[in-house]
Amino acid sequence: MQHSAAFASDNAAPTHPAVLEALIRANDGAVGSYGRDPFTERATAQLRTVFASPEAEVVFAFTGTAANVIALSAAVRPWHEILCSDVAHALLDEAGGPVRISGAQLTRLPSDDGIIDAGELERRVARRGDVHHSQPRIVTITQSTENGRVWTAPVLREFIDRAHAADLLVHIDGSRIANAVAALGVTPAEAIGDADIVTVGGTKNGQMFGDAVLVRRPELFDGIRFVQKQIGQLASKQRFVAAQFEAMLTDDLWLQVAAHANAMAARLSAGVTALGFRLAAPTEANEVFVYLDDAARDRLSDYAVHQPDALTPVFRFVCSWATTADEVDDVLERLRGRS
Amino acid sequence: MQHSAAFASDNAAPTHPAVLEALIRANDGAVGSYGRDPFTERATAQLRTVFASPEAEVVFAFTGTAANVIALSAAVRPWHEILCSDVAHALLDEAGGPVRISGAQLTRLPSDDGIIDAGELERRVARRGDVHHSQPRIVTITQSTENGRVWTAPVLREFIDRAHAADLLVHIDGSRIANAVAALGVTPAEAIGDADIVTVGGTKNGQMFGDAVLVRRPELFDGIRFVQKQIGQLASKQRFVAAQFEAMLTDDLWLQVAAHANAMAARLSAGVTALGFRLAAPTEANEVFVYLDDAARDRLSDYAVHQPDALTPVFRFVCSWATTADEVDDVLERLRGRS
Amino acid sequence: MQHSAAFASDNAAPTHPAVLEALIRANDGAVGSYGRDPFTERATAQLRTVFASPEAEVVFAFTGTAANVIALSAAVRPWHEILCSDVAHALLDEAGGPVRISGAQLTRLPSDDGIIDAGELERRVARRGDVHHSQPRIVTITQSTENGRVWTAPVLREFIDRAHAADLLVHIDGSRIANAVAALGVTPAEAIGDADIVTVGGTKNGQMFGDAVLVRRPELFDGIRFVQKQIGQLASKQRFVAAQFEAMLTDDLWLQVAAHANAMAARLSAGVTALGFRLAAPTEANEVFVYLDDAARDRLSDYAVHQPDALTPVFRFVCSWATTADEVDDVLERLRGRS
Amino acid sequence: MQHSAAFASDNAAPTHPAVLEALIRANDGAVGSYGRDPFTERATAQLRTVFASPEAEVVFAFTGTAANVIALSAAVRPWHEILCSDVAHALLDEAGGPVRISGAQLTRLPSDDGIIDAGELERRVARRGDVHHSQPRIVTITQSTENGRVWTAPVLREFIDRAHAADLLVHIDGSRIANAVAALGVTPAEAIGDADIVTVGGTKNGQMFGDAVLVRRPELFDGIRFVQKQIGQLASKQRFVAAQFEAMLTDDLWLQVAAHANAMAARLSAGVTALGFRLAAPTEANEVFVYLDDAARDRLSDYAVHQPDALTPVFRFVCSWATTADEVDDVLERLRGRS
Repeated sequence: MQHSAAFASDNAAPTHPAVLEALIRANDGAVGSYGRDPFTERATAQLRTVFASPEAEVVFAFTGTAANVIALSAAVRPWHEILCSDVAHALLDEAGGPVRISGAQLTRLPSDDGIIDAGELERRVARRGDVHHSQPRIVTITQSTENGRVWTAPVLREFIDRAHAADLLVHIDGSRIANAVAALGVTPAEAIGDADIVTVGGTKNGQMFGDAVLVRRPELFDGIRFVQKQIGQLASKQRFVAAQFEAMLTDDLWLQVAAHANAMAARLSAGVTALGFRLAAPTEANEVFVYLDDAARDRLSDYAVHQPDALTPVFRFVCSWATTADEVDDVLERLRGRS
Repeated sequence: MQHSAAFASDNAAPTHPAVLEALIRANDGAVGSYGRDPFTERATAQLRTVFASPEAEVVFAFTGTAANVIALSAAVRPWHEILCSDVAHALLDEAGGPVRISGAQLTRLPSDDGIIDAGELERRVARRGDVHHSQPRIVTITQSTENGRVWTAPVLREFIDRAHAADLLVHIDGSRIANAVAALGVTPAEAIGDADIVTVGGTKNGQMFGDAVLVRRPELFDGIRFVQKQIGQLASKQRFVAAQFEAMLTDDLWLQVAAHANAMAARLSAGVTALGFRLAAPTEANEVFVYLDDAARDRLSDYAVHQPDALTPVFRFVCSWATTADEVDDVLERLRGRS
Repeated sequence: MQHSAAFASDNAAPTHPAVLEALIRANDGAVGSYGRDPFTERATAQLRTVFASPEAEVVFAFTGTAANVIALSAAVRPWHEILCSDVAHALLDEAGGPVRISGAQLTRLPSDDGIIDAGELERRVARRGDVHHSQPRIVTITQSTENGRVWTAPVLREFIDRAHAADLLVHIDGSRIANAVAALGVTPAEAIGDADIVTVGGTKNGQMFGDAVLVRRPELFDGIRFVQKQIGQLASKQRFVAAQFEAMLTDDLWLQVAAHANAMAARLSAGVTALGFRLAAPTEANEVFVYLDDAARDRLSDYAVHQPDALTPVFRFVCSWATTADEVDDVLERLRGRS
Repeated sequence: MQHSAAFASDNAAPTHPAVLEALIRANDGAVGSYGRDPFTERATAQLRTVFASPEAEVVFAFTGTAANVIALSAAVRPWHEILCSDVAHALLDEAGGPVRISGAQLTRLPSDDGIIDAGELERRVARRGDVHHSQPRIVTITQSTENGRVWTAPVLREFIDRAHAADLLVHIDGSRIANAVAALGVTPAEAIGDADIVTVGGTKNGQMFGDAVLVRRPELFDGIRFVQKQIGQLASKQRFVAAQFEAMLTDDLWLQVAAHANAMAARLSAGVTALGFRLAAPTEANEVFVYLDDAARDRLSDYAVHQPDALTPVFRFVCSWATTADEVDDVLERLRGRS
């Protein structure tokens, strides 16, 4: 039997029907390429509104890795240093792309499942101005984090304030920003605080493809559209990226589906806990990290599930807009040993 | 009135209906991400078959620029030199991406509308082994060329043979390879000859997005999947790239639509010639380059048309799968001065 | 009064007289440039002999940073990962050069003053073959370390064996290799074990300038001479680099002066310990790291001494070929509070 | 018999005695490293004075290639374009270093032996602001040129004015700037006009090693000292670079020796012309380019002479501070067929 990819990742899910319909509607006649189209104009306006960033520039990309690479590369010159957490996607899961493209050194800071203590920042800038050392320029954090945690609004605010006080820019990798917003019950603007540049995830939220970079201080990222073009992220038929964002951002669909994914993760998390399994991280968004012994893993052998570290028996279950309660219950059922 | 983008580029066209249907069909349930899906498997097999390259690896990308950057960057080390024509897209229209990502020097050779004389190659390798000079490693050519020309099979064969004899690899930028195959009336394999690596265009041919890299000598491009990942071109939901290729390659749809685009270009070319306008390059595929005086340009003011060089009154009309005879005739009508 | 730089670094010292004489002797008539000279030939042969590496290639550079950048950049492709200790010069004191030039991610491993436990290596290669992750390729260690420690021959052998078993190359940053050889009382070959590539320091050992890269497995670093040229490290008048190595390597002068520097450090280390100051690291080569309170630091205010971390009151004293017992004793005298 | 390198290049020559003496004098005690020494201070002040650039920053490097790489890399971001002549050292003889390190595209312009017509510049900036194209940022010219020509002050002024009008910075590769100043009989400031950044050659002029970058608009090259460090060009014992410049710049020694080299070239040029050989370029500084038939080349077989292009029988003779009239006459004698 084929493995089910239902919990393998939120990017194993199909495209949300509303997105598909938007793509069909957008497929009408010739329009200007490379973003000279009304879809791009509208989606850009929506992103500005949703994130309360009227002055922001919006740069579209096909993937989250691309959005991160574009944002970070545009932020730095090649003698700069980028700071990140010890579980950052940009550090561990982008094949070194941010380093290769930017030329900057990427330095990991200790974290609590991706939440970095603001106190880490000051000591990192002690060698600013020293020509022998990379110059710290920007810190990237992830909201919600790679380990399924969320930065609460006050913690985020404090972190960004101290980063700015240390003369560091702040990037948020928001490939799952929708899940964070939904989990926190705050506005999107509060979920990103005063960050200078934000990757806004679309793919994991339900799009076919497409992430965006919200450039809130464009004067500090002046070459960003060249970086986008250089790595092949400027879509010639960009209407088909923009139309997807338009569909998701309309009537808060993006947050509704994220809330659903979070709810499914909460159901799964409560279920495995009730069954006596130990969580490896608190379940705060749409991901559940749980220790499974061999017997339990065997009972779930029909499911492809990600094990981040081959040496530790922690497994990651990711819920998406498409996850159903039945699917969650099937996992629990199997863990209970009844199937 | 809005400008019509009908002739602005083949990437101004919408998605071919067969592609859209394939996307809808592919949108069914969770599947493995990053290419671990049956669509990727099938499209890969089709590309191998179509190009008679059973040993080739296939690497997907979202755009033609990306496919070129991936292919060229994987080919070289940063002390190598890449040779190209003086009108190469990689040289003029990719914002320096191939150079930035590869670190290699990019050297332009004179050409006849993108067709490079094979005699140019030998002299370019005279300093091989000289530590003071970049080391020539690969030559990239475009089929059909940026100026709408095609490399005939014998000319291509001779060129590639001499490149190989000079110990140069050959890349074909085939963002419009379908138009070349259709124009030449040869097999796809003949249209790429013994090239070592080929960008196979999908976007301009009718897809929503998606180009592929056909790696025919994988042992010489061993890190190519890392480059793909690093610049954000590894789609998490890759089934939606692969499904589009599958749709186009089935029953030779890709060649049928290319032949249609070529026919429309031929109709336009014959029409403008009959009206006394001078072509700037022979019309051999789906692009028409024509000199227009100010009066003629004014009569076409409803159309957005690309002028490659601001100092020369040559305008480019590109036909696509979606171009209609009526649209062509409307342009001719206006040039004739009757509308 | 002017600060004395006597203990600021071994590169604050002047050129050893024997080197200066060799430069004067070498200054005779026109010779081939870029290494086509007999001095280069002789110094290359000497380095091969001294390190028992008859097949090694020798690449000269002007500085230790340059030698490291050349060695590491030639070792990797830009999707590779370089491993280093948490105090590595390549990580902290080369302004990000190795990362910028190579494009590779640089990952720090925990260490004991630069001595990395071999057990750290295996877990670092767990994601080899995973396209989402940088591919570990080479580990760089420093002999003697940045904190003045030496790798003993058995520890080094074990480390390199396990690195090779994990399919990692090994680079030794030997900017102070002479001090390590002298301290260990082993042959130079034993002090570098089976390392694949070694930076052999000349500048800190007493030369005016000049470090070398000993490439012991040339087939794995095939483009290294291009890297040397690209970053401006191929001397046109290379005889003046080579002649310095020739002078130092003749009659083991390089080891004699290193032994002297080590002895001076031992004298200083014993002295400060006797005075009740605490060492921050064992003194094993020519560097002494000692905690100094404010009063002690004040009494030494005539001396420029490096404080590696602004937040910790540890000061570094480096002895060189030129350090005298009187200078050491003056420092001790002042610390004792008598001057 | 050994080949004589007397005319192979000006970097085949030994170190000028005055430089050697300065090195010996500088070798006195410990001084601050990395430029914190009085020699650096004095040489910096001299360079500012000599080039009438009181606000300039001075960055030292070991070689001319390094100085060019530093200057050009600091000038650009990796989506910029660098313009150069078709015979530029930075294009042909630095192994692609400027491209690799800067990430910028390097575009050659036609020239008359390295003298570029200012009219070439305007058309090169036509695509400024176009995200699909590299953005022209700086043009580099060489004074005196690689083919032994000099830019006269009025031609240079006109060129730089038009470059600035086109919003292009200007770099001068002055690895032989002394020869140009001496040949033109103008002040050093006039020989570099209003250039924004200048490589000031020391090695070819008589130093053991050492070139400098004169940064006349430091605010436009703000990271330049990091680039210098990253590629290993920040000398720890920088006094030994600076002391050489100090020696050469004192009492105009640098111009006297350049004038001598020029005079030797003029003597050789007149001689070969009188013998009926044809010059390939006018002799305006210290290089003579002459067509030699096989017989003539054979008669000179004791001399190593550079042939820039293997396919053209043009040979380059370079005179230096050390070239004697006897050496010139020996060449002429042999060409005459008498030896």
